[in-house]
Order: sequence, then structure tokens, then C-alpha cells
Amino acid sequence: MITPWEVKGKIDYEKILREFGAKKIDKKLIEKFKKPLTPLIKRGLYFAHRDLDKFLKSAEEGKKIAILTGRGPSGKMHIGHLIPFILAKWFQDNYDADVIIPISDDEKFYVKEKLSYENARKFAIENAINILSLGFKKGKTKILIDFENTEIYRFAARIAKKITLSNVKEVYGMKNSTNIGWIFYPAINIAHILLPSLIGYDSTLVPIGIDQDPHVRLARDIAPKLNLKKPAAIHSKFIPSLVGESKMSTTLNETAIWLDDNEEEIKRKLMKYALTGGRDTAKEQIKLGGNPEKCIVFKYLEYIFENDDKKLKERNKECKEGKILCGECKKYLANKIYKLLNNLQQNKRSIKLESYMLDSTIP
Amino acid sequence: MITPWEVKGKIDYEKILREFGAKKIDKKLIEKFKKPLTPLIKRGLYFAHRDLDKFLKSAEEGKKIAILTGRGPSGKMHIGHLIPFILAKWFQDNYDADVIIPISDDEKFYVKEKLSYENARKFAIENAINILSLGFKKGKTKILIDFENTEIYRFAARIAKKITLSNVKEVYGMKNSTNIGWIFYPAINIAHILLPSLIGYDSTLVPIGIDQDPHVRLARDIAPKLNLKKPAAIHSKFIPSLVGESKMSTTLNETAIWLDDNEEEIKRKLMKYALTGGRDTAKEQIKLGGNPEKCIVFKYLEYIFENDDKKLKERNKECKEGKILCGECKKYLANKIYKLLNNLQQNKRSIKLESYMLDSTIP
Repeated sequence: MITPWEVKGKIDYEKILREFGAKKIDKKLIEKFKKPLTPLIKRGLYFAHRDLDKFLKSAEEGKKIAILTGRGPSGKMHIGHLIPFILAKWFQDNYDADVIIPISDDEKFYVKEKLSYENARKFAIENAINILSLGFKKGKTKILIDFENTEIYRFAARIAKKITLSNVKEVYGMKNSTNIGWIFYPAINIAHILLPSLIGYDSTLVPIGIDQDPHVRLARDIAPKLNLKKPAAIHSKFIPSLVGESKMSTTLNETAIWLDDNEEEIKRKLMKYALTGGRDTAKEQIKLGGNPEKCIVFKYLEYIFENDDKKLKERNKECKEGKILCGECKKYLANKIYKLLNNLQQNKRSIKLESYMLDSTIP
Repeated sequence: MITPWEVKGKIDYEKILREFGAKKIDKKLIEKFKKPLTPLIKRGLYFAHRDLDKFLKSAEEGKKIAILTGRGPSGKMHIGHLIPFILAKWFQDNYDADVIIPISDDEKFYVKEKLSYENARKFAIENAINILSLGFKKGKTKILIDFENTEIYRFAARIAKKITLSNVKEVYGMKNSTNIGWIFYPAINIAHILLPSLIGYDSTLVPIGIDQDPHVRLARDIAPKLNLKKPAAIHSKFIPSLVGESKMSTTLNETAIWLDDNEEEIKRKLMKYALTGGRDTAKEQIKLGGNPEKCIVFKYLEYIFENDDKKLKERNKECKEGKILCGECKKYLANKIYKLLNNLQQNKRSIKLESYMLDSTIP
């Protein structure tokens, strides 16, 4: 079962598409984007959508558009957590989109049995600052923290009235042992998703992991009942962990790269853990070539860190021909990651969260 | 089944006490109150309690005490709705208690299918002003409206984490067709009940209809889990309608007396509808006497409007001896009710709700 709180086993993306009824992002749709297009889309990490075509049309027509993507805050963030925000920033830079970022400290508090209220709130602030350090524009970026901007409850209530216990059992697999905060939480989440429409945006695009799609489906069901516009969505695959697991986990300290990892740690982890498509020995690799299709390092470059199509193609070719060894690729990626994270660390210092907090009153 | 949203059939108060585990208010406990004691307690409309003795002890010791009693706001309020507030005011006047009044516009919105969000909020404000017009003291009386003081969500979340779906099914009879706002609402209600303890009061007394006891039971279960003190409660019987139904209903326009009824309407309704213990004719009544035990008019005087023990005893005697007729009693009660309601109407004009709104931030 795939719910926002449970992803088990190997993931068959085609099956998810069939079951969830989202559409694939095809070449024709990719043509419609402004260029240069982010690797996240052109290389297919974001692979599916709902109404993305309509959203792009609104954007082209100069209508007021919002990218809505949030985070359930945790103690530490790893680079996988940045992906939807990198995409959001691309839309801000290329389409002048406003970005609205809900931080669901309440969700994490309900779902994580041992997470204290105080820590949930602390993590919300830390995570918000990490996200903003990607370089979002002041005045065009709004942070909404549930336990801070509690007026979201007003809007969530109107949504909650449209959702029965049956609905949440069916969509999220809620059980008798589930706490009633968690049972209510989908209303808060849908309030996030529909908020831009409520406060005057023409169109909303929600970049999400495919596991978050239940929230979007329910939001799209409810929108017309509240005279709001259905949000568009764009779905990503899970970014694999260094060791090649389907979803980078926050529980494995060593195989994820954390935002506060230093240069040495990044290099060490990549060298030690990253799964590649290389051969057992350098000799064999030079003779037979490697396999970039199986290589996590290559996947990171392809999906996120190597913007340049030519360079990527070249690297792919050289790998197959045995002209480069895995160590070189790992160092190359480590350096790209370090540059990003170092940039974030620098930016963090000057961020004043208050200037980004949502100020528009929720009616 | 008796839940806060469902009262069916005739009410056996003894049975409720046995099942719910509250205690009867006995003579010994009544002795402990300051005098002159409100008829609401000395004549037994408030008939049961939890930890009332402990609460009175705190009050006598001069500790910071709060009376917590709220309202699910509706379009119109009838005189039955005033009862817990009359009691709260008695405690404010006699024990210098602070009074905290939560108005659950969210509850009404979740529970009443056809109630719009806008009307729920409008009714909240109207009802709050009606309640304040009883003469509560500024600075010692705080109104909390859920859709206004949404920071209550912060506290409700901590409570919600301690309540499972099983709990609310068992205590409130929640069904699969219940909306998830309603499912969550007990957490908000318990947040109201535990709020005084959270914001620094030593003891809280909650005057409630016996049907609201599930909220109090759950609140008392949860309090120690959040290091808060268990609230005391004092339970009232249902105030009968004019025609003698067990609970005055807001759906029967004609048989309830509304706060905006004028002098003529009050008289007319009492004359036309009030169930008495009188005989079929005046002749018979004079000969055989009436039965005050069966008389709704007498009950209203006994429980609420006739403070004077001597006068009440005299009226009881005269009725039994056939010395007064029902019309006289009805007029007497009508005048008492009119005086109260007229007073409220006068007071309403000068009430500024903002000066009573809860300002202490919920952590």
C-alpha cells in the first residue's frame, strides 16, 4: 500500500500511474516548458502530472500562479528533501511564480509517536530556514507553519466537513488505533493545497512525491465543492539512496547526505557507499566499460546536478567505453553536492524567517 | 444513548449517575457553599459533580480559580441556554472566580449539516454578546471563539495525540459517516476544559448539562498525561421546556422563550403552552388545590427565578390549598423572565466584545 505515511516494497511506477490515474509527462508536454529546462523535468525524475498543461497555459497567459510544496519537518534534512524546492525555485526564476511552503509540524507531531510538541515546532523553524536558503525571493515566497499560522484551522474546518471517516479510512488506511489528530490532518493538508486558490491565485501547481498523491486526489475532489479551482500536480519518483534503495531514508544516518555534512563527509560517504555500475577492478572497467544505467552516482548527476546535456552524454559514453573510473565520477558529484550545500550554509546566516511568514489572513 | 449530540427518550438521572460515575451533591456539600446560595444549586437543578469539594477548598484558600463554561452557538438563544452562565456569574460574584467562556462555532459547523461557515461565525459573536450581557466583569471574564482564537488548535493537537479513533467511537458513538472535523472536535472541547489549568489556574470548575459529561470524563483522563490538573465538574439536569419535555429544544419555536422575546410574547407563551399542575376548572382548583410538583411554572421559579425560600414555600402551600390559580403564577413568572431579558437587552448595547476576548497566548 502506498499512502503518505507508508511505502513498502519495490515501486512499480507504471502501476502507480494506472491505479492513481495521473498522466505521464510526455515529450510534447516537455516542449511546452520555458528553456533552459531543469534536469528534474527534462530527465524524468518528475514523470507524471495532473493538469500540468492547464497550469502552464495559465503561466504563459501571465496569470497569478503559485507553486505549493511543503515539508513535514524533521530533525535533519538530507539532499533528497530539497528536490521539490529546487523545482519550485526553477518555476520562481523562470515563470515568476509565487512559492508557498507549508511546514506541517502538526503532521509530524501526530504521526511520530515519540516526537515532542516542542521539538516539532523547533524542527519546523530549522527546516523552513534550510529551505529558504536555496535562494527563494522575498515577497514572492511564503512560509506557513501549522502551529504558528493556526488560522489554517479555519480553512481546514471547511474541508473537514466534506470528508467522512470512511473517506480517510479508504484513502489513507486510518485505523482504530490512529489518533484523532492524524485522522483530522488530511483536512489541514488539503487546506495547504487549496490555499492559493482561496487567497486569489488563478492556478496552483503541487510538486510532490508520488506517495503524497492521495492528498492531491482528495484536494481535487473537494475543490469544486468549495468553489475553488482544482490544483495541478507534478509527481516525482523517489530519489534513491546512495546504496540504491528506492527512497532515501531519514533513518539511515550513513547512507544519506545531510544538509550539514561537510566536504569530507560528503566525499567519504560517496566513496564508501555509493552504488555504481562499475566493474570489480579498474583493469576490468578499462577493458569492459561500466554501466551508467545501474549507477546511483550517474542518476544523481542526471536528475539533479548535471544541467549540461552534452557533458552528461559525454560522461555516459566515457563510462561505457571504460575511459573514466567510478572514483572520478564520485569526486565530481561530491564537488557538485558540496558546492550546493556550502552555498546553503552561507545563505542561511542572513535569512530572517519572519520576513517570509504568510501574512495574508485566511478568511 | 446519551452523548453531547444525542439525547433520546426519558432521562433517568439516577441511572446516569451510576453509569457515568459522578457523585450526587448532598446536603453536607451544599453546606460548604458561601451564602446566599443560588437556587440553581440549593434547589437541585445542579444535582451531581466530580471533585466539587476539592474545587471549593481551593476557592476558600484563595487560590486562582476559573469557571469554564461554553456554548455551541446557534441562531437564537433561549432562557435555558443561560443557566450555566447564571451559575458562572454567581461564582464570579461570590468567589471572585474568573470565568472563561469558549464558544464552539467549529463544533456547530461540523455537527449541523446545513449551517454555513459564515453563519456559524456570526452566531458565535451574537451568542457571546448575549452571554456577556448577564453582567460578567471585564478583566475577569474571557471569551474564546474557536474560529477566532485559532491558537486553540495548538493545544488541541497535544490532546488529540492522546485520543484514538477507538476512544471517540466508544465515548461519542462516532460513525463511518461522521465528518473528520466532528471526529477531531473532542480534542478542541477538551482543550477548552483544560485551558485554565494550562494557563495557570489552580482549579477549574465546569458547569455542564449531564449530556456533556463525556467531554469531562475524557478531559479528566487526559489531564494527568499532560501534567495538568483534573477539572472539577458540576452537572445539571435538563431544564424542561414549557410543555414539559425533558430538554428545551431549539427546534420548537413556540414552546421556548427566546432571549429576544418581548413582554407580550413571554406572557402569551406562558399562558398558552406552560404545563401546570392545575385542575381543569378554576372551581375545581379552588376546591381541590393544584399540584406544584407537576408544574413547569413552579419548576422555573424553584430552579431559577425565585430566590426567596419563604416565598417559594408560601406559593407551594397556596397552590396546594387552592388559594392561587395558574394564571397568577404564570403572570408572576412572566414578569420575572421579562425583567431578566429586558435587563439583558439593555446591557447588550454597551458591550464591546473585543474587551472580553482571550488574549493570553496559548503556548
